[in-house]
Amino acid sequence: MLYNKSEIKVRYGETDQMGVVNNAVYPSWFEIGRTELFDELGLPYSQMEKRGIMLPLSELYVKYLSPALYGEIVSIETTVDTFPGVRIVFNYKISCGQRLIATGHSVQAFISAETRRPIRIPDWLKDALLPHFGEPEI
Amino acid sequence: MLYNKSEIKVRYGETDQMGVVNNAVYPSWFEIGRTELFDELGLPYSQMEKRGIMLPLSELYVKYLSPALYGEIVSIETTVDTFPGVRIVFNYKISCGQRLIATGHSVQAFISAETRRPIRIPDWLKDALLPHFGEPEI
Amino acid sequence: MLYNKSEIKVRYGETDQMGVVNNAVYPSWFEIGRTELFDELGLPYSQMEKRGIMLPLSELYVKYLSPALYGEIVSIETTVDTFPGVRIVFNYKISCGQRLIATGHSVQAFISAETRRPIRIPDWLKDALLPHFGEPEI
Amino acid sequence: MLYNKSEIKVRYGETDQMGVVNNAVYPSWFEIGRTELFDELGLPYSQMEKRGIMLPLSELYVKYLSPALYGEIVSIETTVDTFPGVRIVFNYKISCGQRLIATGHSVQAFISAETRRPIRIPDWLKDALLPHFGEPEI
Repeated sequence: MLYNKSEIKVRYGETDQMGVVNNAVYPSWFEIGRTELFDELGLPYSQMEKRGIMLPLSELYVKYLSPALYGEIVSIETTVDTFPGVRIVFNYKISCGQRLIATGHSVQAFISAETRRPIRIPDWLKDALLPHFGEPEI
Repeated sequence: MLYNKSEIKVRYGETDQMGVVNNAVYPSWFEIGRTELFDELGLPYSQMEKRGIMLPLSELYVKYLSPALYGEIVSIETTVDTFPGVRIVFNYKISCGQRLIATGHSVQAFISAETRRPIRIPDWLKDALLPHFGEPEI
Repeated sequence: MLYNKSEIKVRYGETDQMGVVNNAVYPSWFEIGRTELFDELGLPYSQMEKRGIMLPLSELYVKYLSPALYGEIVSIETTVDTFPGVRIVFNYKISCGQRLIATGHSVQAFISAETRRPIRIPDWLKDALLPHFGEPEI
Repeated sequence: MLYNKSEIKVRYGETDQMGVVNNAVYPSWFEIGRTELFDELGLPYSQMEKRGIMLPLSELYVKYLSPALYGEIVSIETTVDTFPGVRIVFNYKISCGQRLIATGHSVQAFISAETRRPIRIPDWLKDALLPHFGEPEI
């Protein structure tokens, strides 16, 4: 399993006139979670792009549980439970202290930056991720 | 059924370094779709807020099918198929000509702006929406 | 002189908890103004990038005069008064009916997409723009 | 003089298809700088709004010196050099290590949240800021 916990501080511009964080901000917080997870593994997403892989989203789901407010310190917990094959699924949990703000997940496909077509997870990435999973599914 | 079709032009700042529209932009396009739908009904969302209702999201789902590019004219089709009771579900279809870009839906609860607690759809809104649905479910 | 007038409708997500459009949104509206201006000339900015030119900003100035509100139809007037040499200066005027919302300008340099270094305005672009200026300064 | 240094990590969604941070992101970084400065003083901006003051921007200037890239740790240095009277001027310096990315400033007026009209700096805020300035100008 891959896991990362990151913290961010809610920006003023992330609120809307309802006085809380706008719904469209959460997907950008998920994006922070998964890029931090890769950074921590020593596999920054910018390196992946340089090595010819892109990871565009194919699916996104957010469940909003409690509003987030300007200035709050919010934690983003990101996990990958299943060893990725042609796609990678990230699960997210956003909270502020004991208060659960949102949960969600995203599905991303591995795409060749050159052909812009789906590929399986490249070997170098597979090798780097394998030690973090007990029993690979593939 | 409620239906609206709106068109927007993809903004430069909506792209990211993958060269396509960033995934977190789509929820803001959905937001445009549903606010346009209400505007067309003569029930602008800003009026709802003044009348004491808020519609925060409880769920959001996006299925990404084809990337959207800077400068493209993109259409957002928004529908409400089921008469709203304590919540309202919007379905979205984003396309560029014949190319389907994304589909998705959102679930929103009616909230009192005063108490910030869930309420049923107010009567004045129910009366305004009823003529657009054949057989109300409530 | 180059001139373009474009209209946009203020998006909900562009507001912040002050109940008006967030200050950081205006530069993205300026961006719409100048890309629309180029589109109207038949020189879309995406084409420029394909032909190897980039136009990163070197300066930006905004004067905020009156708040913009969610749902308002806002017009963006963009002008280029001086024939561009190594840089291009856009002037902006944002208004809603008779109400002036903001003015500003941006300065952009011509950059080679390949070398990422400053270049003079390319000949094909010069030729396309010249007919719109009475007396070129260069 | 008031001074704050904050660090942020460039988000993927802050880039555009030029492969660098979009110009419209910098004003939101300035916003982070000034809100962090107030937080550090124990005068969070959210408290000001609760006490009836708003600080909408009247002017913004950005000088772009070097592009910022996804994943970079960027520092935002924010200063207030002059004791505020009817307005407050913030100066910003954004850098990544020794590389200067951007400089700029913003001008904000004190506005009554109730009347939405300009007011002088309230006494409680004046008293809180005075110890940080040698010779108040007012």
